[in-house]
Amino acid sequence: MSDPIADLISLLGRLPGIGERTAARLAFHILASERDYAEALGASLSQLHERVKRCEQCGNFCAGPICSICADPRRDDSVICVVARVPDLAALEKSGTFRGRYHVLHGLLAPLDGVSPSDLPLDSLRERVKRLGTKELIVATPLSVEGEATALYVAEVFKEDDVTVSRIASGMPHGGELEFTDQVTLGRALDGRRTL
Amino acid sequence: MSDPIADLISLLGRLPGIGERTAARLAFHILASERDYAEALGASLSQLHERVKRCEQCGNFCAGPICSICADPRRDDSVICVVARVPDLAALEKSGTFRGRYHVLHGLLAPLDGVSPSDLPLDSLRERVKRLGTKELIVATPLSVEGEATALYVAEVFKEDDVTVSRIASGMPHGGELEFTDQVTLGRALDGRRTL
Repeated sequence: MSDPIADLISLLGRLPGIGERTAARLAFHILASERDYAEALGASLSQLHERVKRCEQCGNFCAGPICSICADPRRDDSVICVVARVPDLAALEKSGTFRGRYHVLHGLLAPLDGVSPSDLPLDSLRERVKRLGTKELIVATPLSVEGEATALYVAEVFKEDDVTVSRIASGMPHGGELEFTDQVTLGRALDGRRTL
Repeated sequence: MSDPIADLISLLGRLPGIGERTAARLAFHILASERDYAEALGASLSQLHERVKRCEQCGNFCAGPICSICADPRRDDSVICVVARVPDLAALEKSGTFRGRYHVLHGLLAPLDGVSPSDLPLDSLRERVKRLGTKELIVATPLSVEGEATALYVAEVFKEDDVTVSRIASGMPHGGELEFTDQVTLGRALDGRRTL
């Protein structure tokens, strides 16, 4: 660690979407800002992994052993929404339409990247389904190749169990223009049509 | 400091060009990355203001009391380039065309923002000009209202001294198209024309 500014630029440049020029701009901005700010941001980052735990139940990020959603007795035990990552859970919570529980996989099946079924917390999901008496699993993984493969695998795992495995709908996004929508999405929107 | 993730998102969101969504994306990326990375970035930020000093001579950032440019005996004492900020100095150094000394103002005259002449290190500039026997000051402040005002003020301050105060050229940028160049720049390019 010889040059503190060059070191900071190099570290910032490893963040997604931040190139060398942006990293330099940010570093000089922080240097020109109050010392308190740099120290607060530094402390926040240094303590991040120590302070943020994974919920023992669902895998959501939390400060204690169990997250606020799992600790909430008003949530509906009969349905669990399976997501790949915590930001996906946060997006669903923001939409305000889901009142069940969650289960965060922290990944998707990707054999080429070395992620196999044993790397996903499906044993703990089965244990929760039994314990909570869950009737439905909504698989809300992304509509990507890995997301679809993971959804199919979850359905396979729970095939013999007394639980329905469903998949979130695929189709046109809200406000989407048909003219500018890709073929796969249009095909899915047609396949998934509903009677009015 | 209740929610460590929310705190980090809020701190990151204060950086220039980083909105709340980008801040959240960065925070979750850091959380998903190795703990070592977050701690290294955190330490780098926490120690930044402590480790980075201002050169006693020119105001450049450095680790010791004097920066590498001021310590270099091969640099030309007869010309000092006056810049507003350290990144400007870094850009000029990268261009490789200047072999003199620098003087960093760490600001520009901006009466409306409360920056008056006494906030700029012009006394130390005069002292250096005398001590080094400098013959020319090149004012390389930005071509903005504040940058121009500061340049004129520097010229005024050294009016009685035995030193030439010059201004960097203003005109068309390299590769610039006349069709897409603003009127002020075109006017300056015409005014500053040189005989071939």
